Amino acid sequence: MGLEVMRHRDLNPHVSVDCVIFGFDNVDLNVLLIEREEGYIEENANNNAQPARGSLALPGDHIREDEKLDQAAARVLKELTNLDNIFLEQFHAFGHPNRAKNEADRQWMKSVRAEPDARVITVAYFSLVRLEMYNPKASSFAKHAAWFPVSSIPELAFDHNLIVRRALEALRNQLKNEPVGFELLPPKFTLSQLRRLYELILGTELEKRNFRRKILKKNFLVPLDEKQKGVPHRAARLFTFDKDKYESFKTDKYDFSI
Amino acid sequence: MGLEVMRHRDLNPHVSVDCVIFGFDNVDLNVLLIEREEGYIEENANNNAQPARGSLALPGDHIREDEKLDQAAARVLKELTNLDNIFLEQFHAFGHPNRAKNEADRQWMKSVRAEPDARVITVAYFSLVRLEMYNPKASSFAKHAAWFPVSSIPELAFDHNLIVRRALEALRNQLKNEPVGFELLPPKFTLSQLRRLYELILGTELEKRNFRRKILKKNFLVPLDEKQKGVPHRAARLFTFDKDKYESFKTDKYDFSI
Repeated sequence: MGLEVMRHRDLNPHVSVDCVIFGFDNVDLNVLLIEREEGYIEENANNNAQPARGSLALPGDHIREDEKLDQAAARVLKELTNLDNIFLEQFHAFGHPNRAKNEADRQWMKSVRAEPDARVITVAYFSLVRLEMYNPKASSFAKHAAWFPVSSIPELAFDHNLIVRRALEALRNQLKNEPVGFELLPPKFTLSQLRRLYELILGTELEKRNFRRKILKKNFLVPLDEKQKGVPHRAARLFTFDKDKYESFKTDKYDFSI
Repeated sequence: MGLEVMRHRDLNPHVSVDCVIFGFDNVDLNVLLIEREEGYIEENANNNAQPARGSLALPGDHIREDEKLDQAAARVLKELTNLDNIFLEQFHAFGHPNRAKNEADRQWMKSVRAEPDARVITVAYFSLVRLEMYNPKASSFAKHAAWFPVSSIPELAFDHNLIVRRALEALRNQLKNEPVGFELLPPKFTLSQLRRLYELILGTELEKRNFRRKILKKNFLVPLDEKQKGVPHRAARLFTFDKDKYESFKTDKYDFSI
């Protein structure tokens, strides 16, 4: 019995999980992708070549017969990219009958799946992390794993482009209910860095002074007696989060709980 | 080939949909349940008897092999309860390995399902409607369909009590992002009626004057030159929604889009 066939035995051929991990690096909002064949990430990622359709995908795989959906998402992410201890939030199940009917996707499934023709419903999870804290390392059927800017994601396998778009919407909705996580920024940061993060998530430019006024009104930012060092432009003031105020703000903010 | 077996042929035995339909009747927040056997709803619903475990459930069934998840939810709701034209929103997939392992649930599945031992993932949908607009009428394997107050839901089949709880959370989250739908109230209503709806969704009492002050500040309510008629207590002023202001409020209100 080959390794691949062994791998199938305890997998449920009808249900999978996919993980959309967003990583912020102070400049860009990125998403973690895996490559299923050798080639693109190593050789072409820096010269704008287009990958073969379906060679890049979200980290995802079938659930095991005996595991919960949340467990499956954490296991699959760990197996394929070595990322661990990430809070994954389920946001949507995708089940269009044609979501895996593309020929390139079908070929790939025939090579690795026990029932390549079974209809697969995927339950999708998302998370937003500080990129520098997580170093992806491909394993299992992933040959490579790397961060890609959300603004220039190539064509992905299955319906994974749609899944990324819906994950971004889920992230935006989250931002409407609670302030962005302070773990995403360095311990001391400028308002421009914070604004950049909001802009990337919301997908729109925010007017500088307006942002400053509104965010300072929220009261969970502490201005420090310190400025940026070693920047080519005029050094900006550094801020930090007041964790207590931040937490109480997070809990209190029920705009419609009246 | 029996009717039941015919019914199975195009159903996917691994994935189902369940619908949590909340109905507001100016007094209570209710949820629509079906009964799979004769008995409880007709004979006992008014004398507080407990139904047999598993005889009551959310309207739900397996998806067809060729239909989208959203389509499946609308079809299943229509087939079992005759409710139609309801905006159903997917909110969570439930997939605990033991979610259908209860003996009563297993017995029932053996009687109606082609693969009663298959693990079933269910994709759950919710909606909130004005109860009087919808008159459930049971058909298919539902023998009865009726509204039950959310505050006193009996033990349901499978993990359906959990699904209702999570649907309530989804409803609460929605209420944080947008004002409650004006279709839920009569065209002219009192602030007490509106407050009652908020209280039922949030599961908590709201201080009367505070609620009045906050909700009027939102500016989408229009006080009318009219009062309630035929009430035993002092007649309260009637209000209506300013639909334009309500709509612009709904779109503008991005508390964190800054």
